[in-house]
Formats: sequence, structure tokens, C-alpha cells
Amino acid sequence: ASPVKWHMAHTTWFFETFLLKAVIPDYQPRFPQYNYLFNSYYNTIGERIARDKRGLLSRPSISEVWRYRQEIDARMEDWLANVDEATLAQYAPILVLGLNHEQQHQELILTDLKHAFASNPLRPIYRDREPDQSSTVTPLTWSRFGAGVREIGHHGDAFAFDNEGPRHSVYVQAFELANRPTTNREYLAFVNDGGYDRPEFWLSDGWAARKRLGWTSPLYWERANDEWSTMTLAGMIPLHLDEPVTHVSFYEADAFARWSDARLSTEAEWEIAATDRPIAGNFLESGRYHPAPMSLDEDGLIQMLGDVWEWTMSPYSAYPGYKPAAGALGEYNGKFMCNQMILRGGSCATPLSHIRTTYRNFFGPEARWQFSGIRLARF
Amino acid sequence: ASPVKWHMAHTTWFFETFLLKAVIPDYQPRFPQYNYLFNSYYNTIGERIARDKRGLLSRPSISEVWRYRQEIDARMEDWLANVDEATLAQYAPILVLGLNHEQQHQELILTDLKHAFASNPLRPIYRDREPDQSSTVTPLTWSRFGAGVREIGHHGDAFAFDNEGPRHSVYVQAFELANRPTTNREYLAFVNDGGYDRPEFWLSDGWAARKRLGWTSPLYWERANDEWSTMTLAGMIPLHLDEPVTHVSFYEADAFARWSDARLSTEAEWEIAATDRPIAGNFLESGRYHPAPMSLDEDGLIQMLGDVWEWTMSPYSAYPGYKPAAGALGEYNGKFMCNQMILRGGSCATPLSHIRTTYRNFFGPEARWQFSGIRLARF
Amino acid sequence: ASPVKWHMAHTTWFFETFLLKAVIPDYQPRFPQYNYLFNSYYNTIGERIARDKRGLLSRPSISEVWRYRQEIDARMEDWLANVDEATLAQYAPILVLGLNHEQQHQELILTDLKHAFASNPLRPIYRDREPDQSSTVTPLTWSRFGAGVREIGHHGDAFAFDNEGPRHSVYVQAFELANRPTTNREYLAFVNDGGYDRPEFWLSDGWAARKRLGWTSPLYWERANDEWSTMTLAGMIPLHLDEPVTHVSFYEADAFARWSDARLSTEAEWEIAATDRPIAGNFLESGRYHPAPMSLDEDGLIQMLGDVWEWTMSPYSAYPGYKPAAGALGEYNGKFMCNQMILRGGSCATPLSHIRTTYRNFFGPEARWQFSGIRLARF
Amino acid sequence: ASPVKWHMAHTTWFFETFLLKAVIPDYQPRFPQYNYLFNSYYNTIGERIARDKRGLLSRPSISEVWRYRQEIDARMEDWLANVDEATLAQYAPILVLGLNHEQQHQELILTDLKHAFASNPLRPIYRDREPDQSSTVTPLTWSRFGAGVREIGHHGDAFAFDNEGPRHSVYVQAFELANRPTTNREYLAFVNDGGYDRPEFWLSDGWAARKRLGWTSPLYWERANDEWSTMTLAGMIPLHLDEPVTHVSFYEADAFARWSDARLSTEAEWEIAATDRPIAGNFLESGRYHPAPMSLDEDGLIQMLGDVWEWTMSPYSAYPGYKPAAGALGEYNGKFMCNQMILRGGSCATPLSHIRTTYRNFFGPEARWQFSGIRLARF
Repeated sequence: ASPVKWHMAHTTWFFETFLLKAVIPDYQPRFPQYNYLFNSYYNTIGERIARDKRGLLSRPSISEVWRYRQEIDARMEDWLANVDEATLAQYAPILVLGLNHEQQHQELILTDLKHAFASNPLRPIYRDREPDQSSTVTPLTWSRFGAGVREIGHHGDAFAFDNEGPRHSVYVQAFELANRPTTNREYLAFVNDGGYDRPEFWLSDGWAARKRLGWTSPLYWERANDEWSTMTLAGMIPLHLDEPVTHVSFYEADAFARWSDARLSTEAEWEIAATDRPIAGNFLESGRYHPAPMSLDEDGLIQMLGDVWEWTMSPYSAYPGYKPAAGALGEYNGKFMCNQMILRGGSCATPLSHIRTTYRNFFGPEARWQFSGIRLARF
Repeated sequence: ASPVKWHMAHTTWFFETFLLKAVIPDYQPRFPQYNYLFNSYYNTIGERIARDKRGLLSRPSISEVWRYRQEIDARMEDWLANVDEATLAQYAPILVLGLNHEQQHQELILTDLKHAFASNPLRPIYRDREPDQSSTVTPLTWSRFGAGVREIGHHGDAFAFDNEGPRHSVYVQAFELANRPTTNREYLAFVNDGGYDRPEFWLSDGWAARKRLGWTSPLYWERANDEWSTMTLAGMIPLHLDEPVTHVSFYEADAFARWSDARLSTEAEWEIAATDRPIAGNFLESGRYHPAPMSLDEDGLIQMLGDVWEWTMSPYSAYPGYKPAAGALGEYNGKFMCNQMILRGGSCATPLSHIRTTYRNFFGPEARWQFSGIRLARF
Repeated sequence: ASPVKWHMAHTTWFFETFLLKAVIPDYQPRFPQYNYLFNSYYNTIGERIARDKRGLLSRPSISEVWRYRQEIDARMEDWLANVDEATLAQYAPILVLGLNHEQQHQELILTDLKHAFASNPLRPIYRDREPDQSSTVTPLTWSRFGAGVREIGHHGDAFAFDNEGPRHSVYVQAFELANRPTTNREYLAFVNDGGYDRPEFWLSDGWAARKRLGWTSPLYWERANDEWSTMTLAGMIPLHLDEPVTHVSFYEADAFARWSDARLSTEAEWEIAATDRPIAGNFLESGRYHPAPMSLDEDGLIQMLGDVWEWTMSPYSAYPGYKPAAGALGEYNGKFMCNQMILRGGSCATPLSHIRTTYRNFFGPEARWQFSGIRLARF
Repeated sequence: ASPVKWHMAHTTWFFETFLLKAVIPDYQPRFPQYNYLFNSYYNTIGERIARDKRGLLSRPSISEVWRYRQEIDARMEDWLANVDEATLAQYAPILVLGLNHEQQHQELILTDLKHAFASNPLRPIYRDREPDQSSTVTPLTWSRFGAGVREIGHHGDAFAFDNEGPRHSVYVQAFELANRPTTNREYLAFVNDGGYDRPEFWLSDGWAARKRLGWTSPLYWERANDEWSTMTLAGMIPLHLDEPVTHVSFYEADAFARWSDARLSTEAEWEIAATDRPIAGNFLESGRYHPAPMSLDEDGLIQMLGDVWEWTMSPYSAYPGYKPAAGALGEYNGKFMCNQMILRGGSCATPLSHIRTTYRNFFGPEARWQFSGIRLARF
């Protein structure tokens, strides 16, 4: 987890590095060393500070980072006010990429902050929230989808990350998808059934992770006097059993699915099921910053978008014909296509305008600090 | 890498544990502690010795392990001589699995031995071999395959591991496959072009592995006075430029492919191309224990089987509808379906009767001690 | 290295924990969790946050820590204004210990800050300083001391740490002590003579540390274009050859001494030589925060006190008859009497009123972030 | 711990390297690579295999090592049969050093073997032994020694390691020494009193080691059904309460002493008390390979020599005026004078002819695999 000020400087660095340096002749950076400090992983751009050292940077201070943002924002506005149409058209993709990049870091700021606050014995509150009123949850049902050749992947002119394309055909077997995410209540039954002590439900690497890291419940769950509570951005609260379970790793999602005599969906299945759904749900804009109890009274799939990122069983791989962009921006997505699992649908910390049904998020199978959850599938 | 005597005891332990204990009432093991020592990873069977501690077992001695094998072999023969047809039919799958399991460990014995000998400054020779006469290599050409729905996976009554099925439909885009594996000469060009120092060709995790582990060439290559040599089971020999490159990790195979403006194949593509080929080539039985220079004068794909396991770009996942067997034998394959990449085709250390075109081998992307090589693909 | 705000809260926590809680009936802490956060190593006081986690505490903020200090200071003043003589006499030792403890952390704040700033690519300046004018250095001479039974250790009523006593007899062989600390010029000759590449000068553990940590010069030295510079609290400056060398580990001091055909002194030799010297020199109060060039024109030993802590060859052990205090304060010194080496004399970051000739400082043999230097001895 | 064959080859390598190569013109080694394999830590002699890799050497085989020993023994005998007096006088110190070096490794072979067998779930027996008959133990009494200047260290012409000299004066305070080593019964009382869970008895580094390594009793102790047993070279046996406790680290010895309201002796105290004692006791030659129950009926100190090495509170440092020999043999002792503690008196695995009252053994404070025990001291 990186400190907030690092995210703030890094997203500004992106505009400076990939836009201002490209478009302004003899560009003079005000803070040349920031290139080293705020590069995240772009080998093409040069050396960078190690990720686990970011938290040790007492300088630049938060106010210096604000000055840096103001400086770069001003230069960007200046450029935008004067640029000609052709140049703008040429650089618009990078501009839009920079905006989407900043949205990704907005989500990371919240999840990193939650992680830091949960590690702090003072358990600070980021933003207070009214406790939920009692709620009910839609019963679990299954939606069936037939076999056949389908198309997935992004098409059209709107922005998408390069890894969402090319659009292509896949063959899917008939499958069924749970109408809603798994709840805390359902996941707690797995916990209470000894799920964390029974290797038969776990992948080999998952069991090793569970042992090594001492997992006995999702991240941020705590038990005292037989009561479960959980850390949220509104502080510690009693565990709400009707909410979607969140902060589980892929390994836990997979073990829960096997215990449930089900499985996770593939990303193709998920996308086929989600296609043409309206982009709506519990996103960043709700200000809740936490998954919501699912009291919807609706047929078919609900909460495919928002609330929690849904782990799929698909490793992150290139779509057929995928080619990363040339140069540093080609490092954005393509070079992570190994040892990562796909998640779909966005979470309560994702900006609404950032998400699409073709959106491919990816994290390592041990990652738990995102708002990651579970939706079951079966044949 | 495990010592030879461990492999020898473990394969015998398999028959004792999964057959004799099941079929003989009140079975009395002669060496009850061996269950702890020679269990590899079956959680269902109980506790086991840690993998990295296997090399420290000075007891049982090699002669005690031979006695154990004789004892269990004798009990097996005794049982086989007296078993009725119906019982035999019931347990035949486990018996055949045990034989295939032992074949897998025969291959591992050779590759573990090679690893131990290569780490030993004395560079011992396992089996001497006449140096190769000069040879030529078939030029690189590409075979084209059309798009469409195809079937892959095992079918029929012959033995196959559970992870090779169910047979199922996949949609493949049109693709091209190199007619032969990559040679040392071709790979050396990548090395000489700075391939190990240019992150733009590498996956992020691959680059991290290359840095952390200090890779600058395939495993077992050494350079002295501008001459390359390589460790083999016949000792150190000059690097033969026409042989298939071997002992590369997935990361190196992937980087080489990107440098070549190509890619690795998917496992579906590989299997479609290999279907109906005769099972022939440079396998364990040749006694060479090393990939052979490819002097074949033949159209189309050559050396798909034998010589080197070919890395694919496919992560190891369950085929649609795959269900592991119940109980301990269900731990054989299914629980490794994460963080592993598929290899196809068998190697010069694989027994001929062990391989199939549907055979799915898998190792982590860093593994280099198998006879693993490269075959390029492209759209 | 801990953040400044941690030191500030910890020294205040000391007064709250060992004084206020003892003297005020039903003492109510305003911030009960601070006991966990700001305990350093007192097992008797309870659980505490791990040392390497201190840097991750984004809360309490620096202003909250100031409030905590003001609160505890006010309560202390209130207590002091009203306490009776007898009680004061009883608690005065703890009060004085708390003041001395805070002085130790004042020194640590400077050395931790230097370490953080040196690790920061921006190389921030803590306090600007005029560059030194050119200077000369007193030539190296040796002072001789005879053999016999001597007394060392603290006596009298003034404050001293418990580990400075009991005063006791020791037998010392005749020895010689260098009149001044080793200079950068002398140490650089060791560097240039390949001192860091010649294991014959190094202790076995020292050589292992040098290899593992990649040492090729004292901490904070940097070489560019054949010019040496060094990080100071006034930023990067050219290496001043006449200054005492500093930021060397015990291992480097010991190797340098062996290369010099000399040795480090024992702590008894050092104390015998230093006895009755006036407590004066380049301490914290000079505001220099850096060792000074030694331009003194004086016979006999100079700069025994101040400038740099001088490594001795004495491991940190209990003096005969030493008994730590009962309870938590007994953890202050006694429990570190293993794997540490004694340093004597104070440094340019030590408050003048804090030092004595009997003062025993101690750090592990790898520690380099204190202002630690070298004074040679021989028989 | 190193394998037996490594010790056997290494002790022979010593004679080849430091004698044969020095005295035979144009010496031709039969196995030049053995210099790399069997060098232990002599930097001056060149590169060497890492200690933790020794166990992985499947070649040379044990019979090849025997051949190596025969070869070098024959060359040594040949040289000794023909050498002239003057040359012999010159090289006799190295010859005697080589013999003493081999004796040290004889002891290490036993303790390394014990460690390997104890780690092996089969718990092999090295040499069977009759169980002890019931016994009584001499009650604990204290012997008093007066204060004053004393001489310690080796003198005279007989062999001693360089670190045992020069003989020199020390001042000792009056002290008392326990008449016999601490027994298992006494140590068990510490265990049962929660000694391993009470940090107030432990040095800071000791407590950290106890936590990190999970110590709850001496090495090789095991508890089942409220009965303690212990691994010996005769296999697992019930813990004999009257035997000297052994396989404790310095940290445990120190914590036990503090719990006992006593301390460990300094090495000077130990040597003063042991001077002029006959060299007799339970050494290697008894064939017991285990400390003996102390049924002696004798006044004054017993079992100072043999049975268990006795931890002292003295860190291993150079005696005043100590100078290591020049060249590689100078690496024998001097370069370990840091982070090690002194043990005195020899153990049941030490050859009788190897020990002296001036003998200084040393190990790190965590080491437990030697036959190390405790004798209390106090003022």
C-alpha cells in the first residue's frame, strides 16, 4: 500500500511524463527528481524508487505535492487552451488514458487508506456513516445461459484499455450464474464449517498461502466474544450478514465455491451474462464506500456492477491478436499477463464513469485489500 | 530437487498407500513411518516431511529403500496373482495411475540428477555419450491452421490423467505454428542482442525473476573465453547450435517469442496441430537424455513429440466440466490449477509409452530444470 | 529508524508511564492506546507495535502528538508544583532518568532524520551550514599508559545509568592510545588500499556483513567522477579529509585498525585515559551536527569527548556486581548485554550535559547510522 | 550441520593444504577440485562451497572420500619417514594443529550426526547403550574464591591454540562457583515455572530468539502425555532428571541463571577455579556419548571437565597482546572474535587428549547442538 500523497503525485506525473514532455518543446520540469520518485513501473521511463520504500518518503511533503499538482494542472490547462485540433486528436487517447489512470488511483487511495487505518491500532475513521437499517436479501437463484459461439471484448469508439480487445469469438458451454454475490452470512457458514482448516477445498498454492499468512477469515474481519466485526472506512462495525462478502482473495473465493459445490465463472461467461446491462449500482459516487445489503426485488442477475469486484476463474491472458501499444504506454497492461486472476464488474470504490462490462481488472490470487467478492457459477 | 532414493521410495509408497491398504484387510505396513517420509503432497493422507528437507534424510539408506521396494513389489505380485476379476477391474485404474505416476518420477529422477550434478563442482557424468557428428537443421517455416470450433481433450478408454478431460469444444482463431522447436543458435541470437537486459521483451514478473535470480542465459549454459558450453547428463559439452534450446523458463520462452515478433501457442492450438501425429521421436528410450539436432528432411511440423516440452501461453486451468476424483487421488492434478503454465509434447527424458497429444504437463513460470523448450506461433 | 513524531511521543510516554501512572491515584490516560503505540521495548509494560511498523503510522498526526506532549507536560508541571519533598525524593531518580532518556532520543532524532534524508533522492537539507574554511590537523601521536590495577565505573551521587556501575577494579596491561580520532584522509587510504576487498583485515562476521550489505565505504559516502562527497544534515558536501571519519560500523573500525597494525582500545583503557578530562568539545550545542576538523594545537589526547562516538573492542557486558533495577525500568540497559559493542565519548549530536567519561553507549557491530568513529590503540 | 563425509574429507584436506603443499616441491594434488569442496572458511586459500550446500554433494561418494584419506595419509607417512629433523621441527606445529583440528571435527561429527538423526522421523540409533541404573546426585553447594590479581591463559611448550594466550594478569572480584553442573531436574523446574514465557529472565536478543525459533525446552527434549523424553545417540530415552542439562543455548543458560538468582561465571573465574585439576571425566573415550548422572561423593568442584561444555558470560575476545599467526592459519581462531560466547571444560564428545583448563571453545549465543550446559556462579 502506498501513501495518499504518492498516488496524488504519481497521477500528476503521468500527465507530465506522457503528455507535457511529448507536446511541449524543450519542456523544463520544475522538479526533475520527481520522475524517479513517482514512476510506478515503467521500465522504459527509467529507474524508479522501490514500491516498499514509498512509505518512507518524508519529503516532498503533502503541501509540496499539492504545489506539484497545481503546477502541472496549470500547464495542462494552458496547453489545452492553445492546442490545435489535429494535435489534440493525436494526443486525446493519452489524455483520456491519464484520466482513467487517475480514476484507478482514486480507487487505490481508498483501499490503501483502509489498509493503513486497519493496521493502525487507533482504528481511525475516514468518513462516518449512519448504521444500516435492518434489511433482507434476495434469495439465491441461478440464471441459465446456453452453449455456443459468442463474442466478447470491447468494440466501438469509446475509451477502453487495450487489454479489453480485440473483440473475438469464444465457444462457451452452457452454464448457470448466481443471481447475486455471496453474502457474509453464506461465507460465515463456510468459516463455521471449518472451511479454513480443510485442505480438500483449497488449491495447493491457496492452502500454502492460508497457512503462511494465517488466514482464518476475510481480511478485516475480527472476532471477539463470539461476535464478528469488520473494519470499514467508517471504522469498526458489527459484521452485517446480508452484505456481499468482500476482501477475500481468489484462493478463498475458489475454496468457498468448491465447498458450495459450485465454481467461479470464467470471464467470458461473466461478460456474456453482463452484456447490455445498464451501468448502475453502488459505486464510489454513493459515498458509502462499502458494499450494500442486497434488498433488491428483481428477477435475474443483480449487482453485477458495483459493490464488489467479482473474482473469476480466468487467469489474466492476452485476447487473441492483442498487441500492446509501442513505448512506455505499452507497459500499462500487457506485461502483467501472468500470475494474475481476472476480476469483473467494479466495486463500491470504483467511479461509475470508469466501468464497462468489458473491463478486465486483475490482481494476484493472494490479494485481499481490494473490495473483491464472489459470485458463484456452475454447469 | 529430491534425491533419487526419495523418488524410488515415493513411487512404491504410492502403490502401498492407494492399493495395498485399500485391498488387503488389516494391512500391516512393515515401515509405518514411511508414510510420513514418502508422502509428497497428499493432505488427505496426513502429515508429511517438507520438500526441502528430503535431501537431509540420511536414513533410510539406499539399501533400505531397495528392501522396501522389494517388499511392496512382492506384496503387489502376490495380490495380483490371487485377485478376482471384479476386484481387479475396480482397482485397475489406480494400478495404471501408479504406473504412470512412476513414469513421471523416472523423468524427474533424471532431471533432478542433472540438477544435482550441475550444482556439484566436480560435474559428474551420469552416462557417457559419443559426441554428435556435425548436422544441419531444417529451416524454419510456418504451418497455417484455419479458424473455427474444434474439439480438444482426451476421449476413449485408454488411460489419461483426469485433467485431460472432458473433451470439449473450443473456438480458435486462425494461427500459424513453427515447423520445429527453436534452436540454440536462434536463442543465442536473442542473448547476443541483449535479450536479458531489455525489459521491453519481458513480462513484469519475468523481469523480476531474471533480476532476482541473475539469469543471463538458459540454465546450465556457461561461457568461458567466448565459448559457450552446457551441462548434460554426459557432463559438460560445447553448446551444439543446431539442437533445440532447452532448460528455459516460461518467462524466457515468452521474452524470446516477443523478441522474435511472434508468441507461444495456446494449448488448444498446439493440440489441434498435433492431433493424429504418430507418437514417435527422441524419448527416454533413445538413451540420449538430451534433445537431438534436427536434421529431418520433412514437410510440415516436426518434433512435436519428444526432445523438449514446449511451453504454451496457456495457464493451467480446469477444462469445462472437469471434476477431480474423490479422496486423496483427487489431489493428483486439480489442486495445482493456479500459477502454472501448460507444456506439451514430452521430452527426451519422458518414456514413450507415457505421452499423448492430449497430455497436459504444467510447471511454474520460473521452472527451468525440466527439458523445456520453445515452439513459436503467430496469427 | 523511527519517525520524529514517534520519538516525540515515546519520550512523553515515558513520563506518563513511569511517573504519572505511579504517583497519581486512579490516573486516567487521555489516549490509552498510546501505551501500545509508543512503548519501545518494555516487555513488562505490555504489548507494543513492531519497530519496523512505526513508520507506517499515519495517525496520530504530528499535531496530535504535540497535543499529547502538551497534555503530559501540563500534568507533570501540575504534579511538580504540588508534590511534597519526600515523594519528590522518592521519584526524583525516575524523573532524572526520563530527562536523560529524552536526551538520548534527541540524538536519535538527528541520526534517524539524517538516515531518512540520505535515503530520499531529493536529499533534503535539515539545517544549512557555512562550508568549513581550510584547516590543518594535529599529527598522530601516541600517549602511553602503564600497567596495573585501576578503578573504573561511576561513583558519587550524580546521575548515571545503572550499567555504569558498580565501580570496580580492573587490571590493565600497559597500552598506548592515539592522541586523536582517525581522519577521513587516513580512512580513505584504507579504502584506496583495497581495504574493503581484503578479507584478511576483517572479522569473519564483518566480512559477511560487508559482502551481504555491499559496503565499499562508510555510510553516506558517495563517489562520482573520482570525487568523494558525503551526506550531512546540511545536505551533500564534498568529503572533508581532515574531519574525523564517522558512520563506520564496529566491523569497519576493527578492520581499519588491523590494516593500521593497531587495534581498538578496550573500554577500560579508554576510561582510564579519559578520567579527569574536562567535559568539553563539539557537542549538540555547537549546532554543527557534524564532526569538526581537528585543528587543535595541544599535547596529549584531544577530542576524547564529542565529535564521534569511539568504538571500543569491548563487548557490552555487566560490570561485576551489576544488578538491574526491579520492574520495567530494569529493562533499560541490562537486557541488551549481548551482541553489542561499547562506544565511548559522545558525539556532535549528543547534548553536552548528557555525557560522562564513565558513559557506556552500545550498538550492534553492524550499526553505522550513529556518529561513530575510530581511535586507535596498541600495546 | 555437515555430513560425516564432509568432515572426513575436510580434515584430510587440512593436512594436504597446509602441510603437503608446503613441503613437497611441485606438489600435484590428485583431486584439485577438492580444494574448493573441502575448504571450510579460509579466505586466504580461495573460494569455497557455501556451508549450507555441503549436504547436497552426492559426489564424491563416501568411498571416494575414503580413497582420498588413504591417499593423503600415505603421502603424509611417506613424508614423515623421510623428513630431516630441522624441517620436521619447522612443520611440527602445523602437524600438531592438524591433529587437534581433526579432534575438533570428531566431536562435530557426533553432534552433527545427532542433529541429523534427531531431525529424521525414523529417529535412528547411532550406538545402543544400556539404560542407566537409578542414581543420586551430589547436592548443590558453592565454592568460594577470593579477590585479587590472577594469571590466566596458556603457558609452556605443550600444544595450545593461539587464542589461549598470551598468559596475562586479570583482576577478579571474590566469587562463588556451583560445585556441579545444573541438572535436568533443576532446569525442568525453570521450565515448569514458566521460564520460557517470562521475558523478565531473558536478554532481549535471547527473548527474540526464543520467540522466533519457538523454543519451549532444551533442544531434543520432547513431551508426550506429560512425560519428557530426549533424543540421544542411543535413540529416544526418557529424560533422566539427575543428568546435567545439555543442548541449551547461551540465552537459555543465562535466563536459567537469572531465574536462579545467580549468573554464569566469567571465563577467568572458571579458569581460576579449574586450574590444577586433573584432566579426567566423562569424555569421548567413555563411549557413552551423553552426560552422566553425577553420583560422585566428593568435596569441592566436580565435573568441571567433560560431560558438558559450560557456557560462561564472557564474549569471545582477544587476550591482551594476542596476535593471530600470519597467512591462512591465522584465520583459525582470531577472526571469530565477535558475537560468540566462551564455553569451557569439554564434553562427553570431546577426546580426552584434546582438552585443557585453558581451552577456549566458542559458539554463537543461539547454538544448541553441542553438548552445552550450565554451571552457576554468584558473588
